Amino acid sequence: MQALYVSDGKLSFVSNYPVPEPNPDQALIRVTMAGICSTDLEIVKGYHGFSGILGHEFVGVVEKAIEADWIGRRVVGGINLGCNRCKVCASHGPEHCPDRTVLGILGHDGAFAQYLVLPLSNLEIVPDRLSDEIAVFTEPLAAAVRIRDQLIISPTAEIAVIGPGRLGLLIGQVLALSGTPVTMIGRSLDSLRLPRNMGLKSGLQDEFEENSFDMVIEATGNAHGFEQALWLVRPLGTLVLKSTYDGKATVDLSKIVVDEINVVGSRCGPFSPALRLLEQGAVDVRPFIEAQYPLSEGLAALQHAAEPRVRKILLQVS
Amino acid sequence: MQALYVSDGKLSFVSNYPVPEPNPDQALIRVTMAGICSTDLEIVKGYHGFSGILGHEFVGVVEKAIEADWIGRRVVGGINLGCNRCKVCASHGPEHCPDRTVLGILGHDGAFAQYLVLPLSNLEIVPDRLSDEIAVFTEPLAAAVRIRDQLIISPTAEIAVIGPGRLGLLIGQVLALSGTPVTMIGRSLDSLRLPRNMGLKSGLQDEFEENSFDMVIEATGNAHGFEQALWLVRPLGTLVLKSTYDGKATVDLSKIVVDEINVVGSRCGPFSPALRLLEQGAVDVRPFIEAQYPLSEGLAALQHAAEPRVRKILLQVS
Repeated sequence: MQALYVSDGKLSFVSNYPVPEPNPDQALIRVTMAGICSTDLEIVKGYHGFSGILGHEFVGVVEKAIEADWIGRRVVGGINLGCNRCKVCASHGPEHCPDRTVLGILGHDGAFAQYLVLPLSNLEIVPDRLSDEIAVFTEPLAAAVRIRDQLIISPTAEIAVIGPGRLGLLIGQVLALSGTPVTMIGRSLDSLRLPRNMGLKSGLQDEFEENSFDMVIEATGNAHGFEQALWLVRPLGTLVLKSTYDGKATVDLSKIVVDEINVVGSRCGPFSPALRLLEQGAVDVRPFIEAQYPLSEGLAALQHAAEPRVRKILLQVS
Repeated sequence: MQALYVSDGKLSFVSNYPVPEPNPDQALIRVTMAGICSTDLEIVKGYHGFSGILGHEFVGVVEKAIEADWIGRRVVGGINLGCNRCKVCASHGPEHCPDRTVLGILGHDGAFAQYLVLPLSNLEIVPDRLSDEIAVFTEPLAAAVRIRDQLIISPTAEIAVIGPGRLGLLIGQVLALSGTPVTMIGRSLDSLRLPRNMGLKSGLQDEFEENSFDMVIEATGNAHGFEQALWLVRPLGTLVLKSTYDGKATVDLSKIVVDEINVVGSRCGPFSPALRLLEQGAVDVRPFIEAQYPLSEGLAALQHAAEPRVRKILLQVS
């Protein structure tokens, strides 16, 4: 099958990769559409040291599964595969299993390919009225929704999201659904055009004073975001960290202690609420789509996705 | 009056410092005993850029106050002085007032002196049965108790406290009062002697595997503590930061995101519960006392306090 394969930080397009064979608890899924995420770009730069097929945002159709009901169903799927035997899997699901693999990120071939395998328990059926182009946003939208799982979002809190990129704008939309005032913060006027078009408040970083926000979501994708976020959050406030990247950050941790800041790491989220929000039209993902490429032009697609201020690049797989 | 004065990172003993004059809402307090804290040592090294009389842990007797009831009372006192006019003071008290001063730390002369002034609203009366040597631990014990204000401490959680120093051991004792298993973690066998004598579980850092604890309290007082703590805390666990020091830390923040760690900064705490714990004898501070010096030998006392693994050094002031 065709696939985008990464090894030692080098990405290649291959056309003779073996189709994966599902275990009894897994489905074989024919991928129809995939999305390129900043984490994919970080992996190509060396983050996580992953070798295998890249990609974890997808929509596809089940082709093989022990439970016949699944066959032919259009699905999206949670990206973490747990051992299903440990205490963590039993109490929290696969997301934090110490022996987990992760689709296209850690020890499990990903979605930039004609086929992938995932456990049936990871799958969610896509409602008919959602096109592939919309449903492919389920995974990043679930990551945005995850914050709602972790924290009480007060509708009177002043919230800032730093980094008006693909993930940041999904987070901004999700949090604004509480009636909370949300401000998207960027580094250039150009980066604020999209949030403004989407009806979100926005501003340049230097327009705001220190300690201006009750809650700050750091979604910059780089090592400087943490200090910016820490500067903007008020004493006793909350800082949500969403960025993963290759490398360390040098930070003054004293503010966390002196101002008693609560820093919350946030990663993958639940797919069902994300699908419901897409179905309700409560979150609008159409303005995010920048371009679509066939899988065979995947290398060009990833180059495009790495350019500054590019929105979502999709891969049409079949 | 006699005082220990710090300026530009240089500490001096002075004997002709003017006795402070209390505002109408303040008391003039004759200091009887003071305690040396790691923060004092950090301030002498340059942390916070403070100039003035050092010291914030004290016991004293009220000599002047508008409310006559206070005169002659033996007191301890909260170290933060708020503006009493802002929204933060009204909702959270003086600890996070943006215009606050802090006794011996920020814009307000401290306790290593014969006299100090503090607002009456900051004072707590010391029960008669507590000696000065015990009551002087109220401020650091309140800082330990603060964690109980911020988080649910599950009695079945595995908790580690990194840094079996003065503050760390108070925290360990306070958390163990929930019936929670608490392990004090140090860098040398020598540093574990005191926690063992106090009946606390303890171990060397390299005896523990990654992700061993549900909650880790970082009380090392140095920039390496954060990474050690992050290594020890399990996914979805909580890391409480207590250390303040001069300088930045270089950290891999990815674990916070990937493992969805909750990092909680924790500073000053409530005095009343600390005094109750001391009065009940639930927390034993006597093993902490290393030595007592008269105020006039304060420079030698601070040198002594800066030596490795020295317990609490007290200053007898009057």
